[in-house]
Amino acid sequence: MINKNELKYIQSFAHKKQWAQESVFIVEGPKLVAELLDSDWIIEKIYATVEWADKQTDPSLNIQIVEAFELEKMTQLQKPNQVIALVEKKLYRAPLEFKEKFTLVLDGVQDPGNMGTIIRTADWFGCTQVIVSEDSANLYNPKVIQSTMGSFLRVRVAAVEITDVLKEANLPVYGALLEGSSLYQTKLTKEGFLVIGNESKGIRPEIISMVTQAVSIPKFGAAESLNAAVASGIILSHWKSQ
Amino acid sequence: MINKNELKYIQSFAHKKQWAQESVFIVEGPKLVAELLDSDWIIEKIYATVEWADKQTDPSLNIQIVEAFELEKMTQLQKPNQVIALVEKKLYRAPLEFKEKFTLVLDGVQDPGNMGTIIRTADWFGCTQVIVSEDSANLYNPKVIQSTMGSFLRVRVAAVEITDVLKEANLPVYGALLEGSSLYQTKLTKEGFLVIGNESKGIRPEIISMVTQAVSIPKFGAAESLNAAVASGIILSHWKSQ
Repeated sequence: MINKNELKYIQSFAHKKQWAQESVFIVEGPKLVAELLDSDWIIEKIYATVEWADKQTDPSLNIQIVEAFELEKMTQLQKPNQVIALVEKKLYRAPLEFKEKFTLVLDGVQDPGNMGTIIRTADWFGCTQVIVSEDSANLYNPKVIQSTMGSFLRVRVAAVEITDVLKEANLPVYGALLEGSSLYQTKLTKEGFLVIGNESKGIRPEIISMVTQAVSIPKFGAAESLNAAVASGIILSHWKSQ
Repeated sequence: MINKNELKYIQSFAHKKQWAQESVFIVEGPKLVAELLDSDWIIEKIYATVEWADKQTDPSLNIQIVEAFELEKMTQLQKPNQVIALVEKKLYRAPLEFKEKFTLVLDGVQDPGNMGTIIRTADWFGCTQVIVSEDSANLYNPKVIQSTMGSFLRVRVAAVEITDVLKEANLPVYGALLEGSSLYQTKLTKEGFLVIGNESKGIRPEIISMVTQAVSIPKFGAAESLNAAVASGIILSHWKSQ
């Protein structure tokens, strides 16, 4: 059984105030929690069905057994999925480094599903660093975490003042824009930045002015735009395939 | 004002039974409805705020003015967006043709957002035909329609028995699979099929056996898989860029 206050506390993670301010965040489902258990992230508490708990072999886990109907009240997913973990937000002590890295820059990507999918895509292509503007979706939004499919464990995501970072790093800055040179004719360097803009407004003017090379994915049909995660994937794939 | 029965009717489109069986479907928001008005699709009725209606110049439109609070009750979106149109499902009289076409095949893509994004991506790359298995998301699910961002107007989507189509067409069948030749080393022909599988289970065995060329997007990092829409975009981009 879970007590009322704890239930309320878990439910509160549906709200921005909670996931932004707390020192922990929630991760759901056996697949993601198994990846967490294999990582160096610290799990504060686990709420799980007895079936899930019975399969665990580590006696040090802080597991509270809950009934299916309780999990249903606690979940942020459409359907509960056996286990909910409360995980400490990781404190990266090393400062961000940009030299010899290719860093993805999200300027106001606001849809949590898009942001999670972009982090997952970055992970696929071995791009392990994503910086986001303060007005982008919050990494610890449960919808972002779930849609990374575990890639938040491997990709460092940091909310920063983008213009400051770009100015200081002084590396090539590629911007995904509707008017730019054809991606297929552009050679992307191994180090630098790729900026992806807001879903409807694109990249904001002060950041466009710092873009050193605008790139466009050639259009052959009539769609007005591409989804931000799809565009990220196409450009990262080109970056790796050249 | 809208009467109770009409309100209930519009709200019923949140349910599968309704969107699958009705001869009409719903489209929301000024941008999509403007595209519809520019197309040859038939709009049966429009519910809109007076502000939206005042901007229209076509006197033949069947517009019912509704209050903001009514639109809020009617919407399938998170926030209502000025206008909801009831649109007749289009009857394509021409049979599907596969010769000299590149057709996207969705085998059990079940997430409506993914499906809509894939249709939008197909449209971008000039791939105007998508066939889907019966267990894929339904095109007329409001979430699919909205996430196509208008591309449902240009891309023909048909639910078919995939194995029958592939057998009869006898063209190259590319399958997006985790074990296949590297996409970057594969030349895709101008005509044929590209099969994208279910988000977690992939392509089903009876369709895998009809794939003539398995292709994989090389992985450089550690993500377990790519999102179905991202993978579609990367492969379609490669198809066009070669």
